[in-house]
Amino acid sequence: MVVSFSRISSAFIGALAGLGCAGALCADAPAGASDLEGFSGAAVAAEVQLEKRFDADLSAADLRGWMQQMSSAPNHVGSAHDKANAEFQLAKFREWGWDASIETFSVLYPTPREVSVELIAPSHFKARLSEPPIAGDSTSTQTKDELPPYNVYGADGDVTGELVYVNQGMPDDYKELERQGVSVKGRIVLTRYGGGWRGLKPKLAYEHGAVGCLIYSDPRDDGYGQGDIYPKGGYRPRDAVQRGSVQDLTLYSGDPLTPGVGAVPGAKRLAIKDAKTLLKIPVLPISYADAEPLLAALGGRVAPSGWRGGLPMTYHIGPGPARVHMKVLSDWNQKPIYDVIAKMRGSDEPDRWIIRGNHHDGWVFGAMDPLAGQVALMAEAKSIGKLVKDGWRPRRTLVYNSWDGEEPGLLGSTEWVEQHAAELKAKAVLYVNSDTNGRGFLQAEGSHALQHFLSEAARDVKDPETGASVLARSLAHRRVANYESQGAGDSGARAGSSTDLQLGALGSGSDYTPFLQHLGINSVNLGFEGESEYGVYHSAYDSFDHYRRFVDPTFEYGVALAKTAGRIMLRAAQAELIPAHESDFAASVSSYNDELHKLADAMRAKTQELGKLLDDESYKLTANPDAPRAPPARAADVPHLNFAELDNAVTKLERSAKAFDREYARLATGDDPSDSAARERMNSTLTTLEQNLTDPRGLPGREWYQHMVYAPGMHTGYGVKTLPGIREAIEERRWDEANEYIGVVARALNNYSARMDRAIAAP
Amino acid sequence: MVVSFSRISSAFIGALAGLGCAGALCADAPAGASDLEGFSGAAVAAEVQLEKRFDADLSAADLRGWMQQMSSAPNHVGSAHDKANAEFQLAKFREWGWDASIETFSVLYPTPREVSVELIAPSHFKARLSEPPIAGDSTSTQTKDELPPYNVYGADGDVTGELVYVNQGMPDDYKELERQGVSVKGRIVLTRYGGGWRGLKPKLAYEHGAVGCLIYSDPRDDGYGQGDIYPKGGYRPRDAVQRGSVQDLTLYSGDPLTPGVGAVPGAKRLAIKDAKTLLKIPVLPISYADAEPLLAALGGRVAPSGWRGGLPMTYHIGPGPARVHMKVLSDWNQKPIYDVIAKMRGSDEPDRWIIRGNHHDGWVFGAMDPLAGQVALMAEAKSIGKLVKDGWRPRRTLVYNSWDGEEPGLLGSTEWVEQHAAELKAKAVLYVNSDTNGRGFLQAEGSHALQHFLSEAARDVKDPETGASVLARSLAHRRVANYESQGAGDSGARAGSSTDLQLGALGSGSDYTPFLQHLGINSVNLGFEGESEYGVYHSAYDSFDHYRRFVDPTFEYGVALAKTAGRIMLRAAQAELIPAHESDFAASVSSYNDELHKLADAMRAKTQELGKLLDDESYKLTANPDAPRAPPARAADVPHLNFAELDNAVTKLERSAKAFDREYARLATGDDPSDSAARERMNSTLTTLEQNLTDPRGLPGREWYQHMVYAPGMHTGYGVKTLPGIREAIEERRWDEANEYIGVVARALNNYSARMDRAIAAP
Repeated sequence: MVVSFSRISSAFIGALAGLGCAGALCADAPAGASDLEGFSGAAVAAEVQLEKRFDADLSAADLRGWMQQMSSAPNHVGSAHDKANAEFQLAKFREWGWDASIETFSVLYPTPREVSVELIAPSHFKARLSEPPIAGDSTSTQTKDELPPYNVYGADGDVTGELVYVNQGMPDDYKELERQGVSVKGRIVLTRYGGGWRGLKPKLAYEHGAVGCLIYSDPRDDGYGQGDIYPKGGYRPRDAVQRGSVQDLTLYSGDPLTPGVGAVPGAKRLAIKDAKTLLKIPVLPISYADAEPLLAALGGRVAPSGWRGGLPMTYHIGPGPARVHMKVLSDWNQKPIYDVIAKMRGSDEPDRWIIRGNHHDGWVFGAMDPLAGQVALMAEAKSIGKLVKDGWRPRRTLVYNSWDGEEPGLLGSTEWVEQHAAELKAKAVLYVNSDTNGRGFLQAEGSHALQHFLSEAARDVKDPETGASVLARSLAHRRVANYESQGAGDSGARAGSSTDLQLGALGSGSDYTPFLQHLGINSVNLGFEGESEYGVYHSAYDSFDHYRRFVDPTFEYGVALAKTAGRIMLRAAQAELIPAHESDFAASVSSYNDELHKLADAMRAKTQELGKLLDDESYKLTANPDAPRAPPARAADVPHLNFAELDNAVTKLERSAKAFDREYARLATGDDPSDSAARERMNSTLTTLEQNLTDPRGLPGREWYQHMVYAPGMHTGYGVKTLPGIREAIEERRWDEANEYIGVVARALNNYSARMDRAIAAP
Repeated sequence: MVVSFSRISSAFIGALAGLGCAGALCADAPAGASDLEGFSGAAVAAEVQLEKRFDADLSAADLRGWMQQMSSAPNHVGSAHDKANAEFQLAKFREWGWDASIETFSVLYPTPREVSVELIAPSHFKARLSEPPIAGDSTSTQTKDELPPYNVYGADGDVTGELVYVNQGMPDDYKELERQGVSVKGRIVLTRYGGGWRGLKPKLAYEHGAVGCLIYSDPRDDGYGQGDIYPKGGYRPRDAVQRGSVQDLTLYSGDPLTPGVGAVPGAKRLAIKDAKTLLKIPVLPISYADAEPLLAALGGRVAPSGWRGGLPMTYHIGPGPARVHMKVLSDWNQKPIYDVIAKMRGSDEPDRWIIRGNHHDGWVFGAMDPLAGQVALMAEAKSIGKLVKDGWRPRRTLVYNSWDGEEPGLLGSTEWVEQHAAELKAKAVLYVNSDTNGRGFLQAEGSHALQHFLSEAARDVKDPETGASVLARSLAHRRVANYESQGAGDSGARAGSSTDLQLGALGSGSDYTPFLQHLGINSVNLGFEGESEYGVYHSAYDSFDHYRRFVDPTFEYGVALAKTAGRIMLRAAQAELIPAHESDFAASVSSYNDELHKLADAMRAKTQELGKLLDDESYKLTANPDAPRAPPARAADVPHLNFAELDNAVTKLERSAKAFDREYARLATGDDPSDSAARERMNSTLTTLEQNLTDPRGLPGREWYQHMVYAPGMHTGYGVKTLPGIREAIEERRWDEANEYIGVVARALNNYSARMDRAIAAP
């Protein structure tokens, strides 16, 4: 899967205009710096020395070679090359001195036996559904080991029906269809990629009565509308298809048959019919070459302006006269997945684990997704292995994992987390994830308690293109983006200057989800982006040749990722105090709470205003008789919610965090041996503090998701919802549930505060 | 020309959420109402009776027949049918009892003898430059009397050069090109229609060193991106071309050789080389069928996302490798234009004129533009003629004019206004303009002193589709648009409820310009829009067949325009007090002044912020080495301007307007005969009050434009700039000029206030 950085919370956009480094200073950013969160002054020098040695063994040539080899054949789950890649990595980890093994799970993984899409009226057209070789792309000729493009976990089916174009197939699109008087019942929907996670498209189509779902990539979104298409440029060519999972990961990730437990032999498995994350209707992804004749055959109303894409035609909604026949028939059997797990035991605190992960399975060759991140992880492991061979040991245990089966639904990470849940809850301090990686600007997501810690790592890594620090470049990028996005009438002033990265909150879409949202393990996601030409996501053209031409030709950004993630891993392993700054977390929760208040207030005002417009017949008066469109449905008034408990918990959290940070600073800077118990108490607290934010009841309707601050949205998929139990209840107008979860969230926050209070109380 | 209603001042968008009529009341909107601005209670009933009789003689069949006849052959300036249409109208006006004549002017009007556009490298393509017949469009076969598509007042030339795509060719586009390191010097630019007036495109191209200019219609803007293309729908087909004037009307409108005076025999004429409104380089409009091979042949950098249109390709900037050869050779002679002028002498105040106008020349057949408005005007004249035949006479003189030569540059209206300037300054009370007209919602522009007066007229006309009042429908439309444009996080609350139309300020693009902006005659522009399928602007497909299928099939909106404009004309002629509400004008000027303060403050903050970003090297740090883009140029700090004089004048204006309105209300509602002198003094004041807003020095660099409150923007063309002498000086960073015009504008406003004060002072 790929990381969408547009997920960054808008609540923090305001705080980005601070000064980074200035001028010449940037160009000489040192490989170590004067202060490191959690390190005493005495320990900083040793750490800086260690990181210099770590950097010295990172090699762009290694990354290039590993990527070329690992992307040389299709490496999806169940393929021969997927297994070979796991074995290759196992051998490498062992060669580098790690205690490595392959952990295997057996998961439900349907693969297509027969797929077809045909336009049967008003004319006939048979969709190609395959990706032809492209000149200069050496692996694109290797079609025999590929699976046909498909959406894994869609249902089997052989259906025929009128076609309806439903734009991106998101909830607002169905509201618009209802206003236009168009039903999808008994019909096949054609949806456009984008606007929300792909799995929601067939799910919502099914809920609205559709019998089949096609998803196409519009050239406006990642094809010629974005830039030259492959092989001239890096964007999606006509026949390229975006594969991808449509498992309902808003309920749980991992093997659909084993929610909550590892998919090992003997595990209790659901019957396929009882697996709630499996889709109920057939769904297939198609290229824009295949979509164009279907769209052109649609009649009915002209699609609203926001629904129109980049094909040279007027987009219509239908239904019909286009009729489509589609068929999906799959092998519904289990396949093995191969996680590579490598440990380097800590010398002092072996039962505190700092975990690193990336996945190794792709949809076809998977150069950018996932191998760009994976080869950086391997470089880190190699370099750490060298340090160990030279006599160094980490203070805490390092765990480097290469996941299988991320693409179908975070299978490898989820099954491993579920299988080892008890141990992880006791030992896991931090999970550091990566996935895709390109040229450009460091983007990071995670708890804001880690914001300063991650910023220090970015401060100490040089950007390959400018020689400035990665932090300086990232901050400059945000400052310029803010400046350029302001209209002429918009005052340039921005509040809340900051010299730190601004972390986005984590939703889903990569392997941090089981760690963070199921178990409550503090997690981070990292990657560079912003300068790549990448429009071949989940197609056979996400290849080594594409990557070396249009993403990161020198692999220097891969090295920069290794340096950044490696610093985070090494520092989290070595710091006397586990890095944290809880006031930043408290401030972020406070801003989420503010958003909820504003959301409810705005919905209340909008609801009242709509009521007035319906009462005074404004909608009736504006109706165009040539294109009638019903008014929006009237909604009941928005009540005032019982926010007090949450407001009090936030106030408490801010106060406790401030006291905790004060004590943390005292312990971190001092080196009084009599404080060692206090330090241990603090580290013990920070190892499991995040778990206070979970609640065993989980989120409404999805108990697997136990984190009360972050979740993928039920109607956004990958996109995060913060304080989701409350926020989604408000958005969906379930007022009792909103009030209930205000209490649940408040209690979680109070537990978190109380745990901090205990950590700093006199023993 | 066509009226773009997007020009409505954003300052007033906030004030639109008031209640219109409610429910059943609307459907029974009476043909007359209880109060009419400027009428005594006693006079209202007679006026309502009169309007009933006026309405009774309006006939959709008349409008249809006249349009069909007048659009049956090309009717551009110099064509046989243009003259025939003038003579037809003359006969009609006379038949209806008007004192009518044709007034002829002789104007410079170049027509092409030879035009060609060829791609000569890297491949060869010859542009078609003509519009083929379309099935079902009966006039489209009549190509022999058409002129080839061209931009009148472009220069002759035979030029060859590399092609550069410059987006819409507006100032910001050239700033972007400069940042991308692309120069147009010695090259031919390809521009896209939209973003500002077409005449600015070749003007700015020339100023940046280009030797030729092509302007094409992108299908995203008015072709298949908007809806089905003609003849399936009403949008621009592949070969349709938007003709149009490129005369520099930001300097003056009318005959390029006779600025300021009527183009009559013996008038002092400039040499062609001295006429500043003539372009210096050749320019031609082309279709998207002709543009596509040119765009496809461009290399160089990928165009920024906002520059990309609806053709199925990646848009590039160039320059080259496309090389283009273009040639324009014209007959630069004078041609006659025929204004039809019809008067109905007032019984009581014959030297106060209420003037109505629309143009009759089109670019080809001109059904929508201009005949849709013209046939409504004719219907009004016929009905008024009938009233007069039946014994009624207007209190003040009615003048109904049908202009020729609007399309090339408001020639007919401007020459007539210049020729009769002295008489008009003494007599003209109000000018009411129309032009295009379609189905939908009434849009009106003009001085806010007329806002309530126009709203009363709209209140008393029934919308053909809903049976509600035109006012209610227009207000409902704005309320719904405001509601739907709010994001979920945007509070629904809006300030300043109002039950009146919200008038936009007048820029240019139709025949009100010489009246308002040259002489200072209060003006209004009217039309219905919002539900037509109209993408054939200025092409041969703006035909009767297109109009009756996709614009106003029943011609009932033409009748509605006649009812609305007719009421405005009749009431302005009949009211005991000339309609006006000066507090609304004062409030609008106050809001313009607020905008200027905010503009200067925002520019100051932005300038400082940019300076910081340049100082701290943010731009340098974000540069992508694969696509370098220079930072914006550093600008000098924005000084604080001497706004005090203007602020004081605005305060004075508000106070004087309030007192004036109070006295107006007393005189309007009372019927004390002893007040007759006071009434006459007020009417005398209102006849010429607007002229106090003019200053003989004119605007900077364009003395023909003398109105200090409204002007077409130097860099927007049709689009209005309010308080333009100050606003444009600020925008262009001419601080001394801004301070100078603060004084000039303040004096004009003070004159206006003083004139109101005198009108209500005890004699």
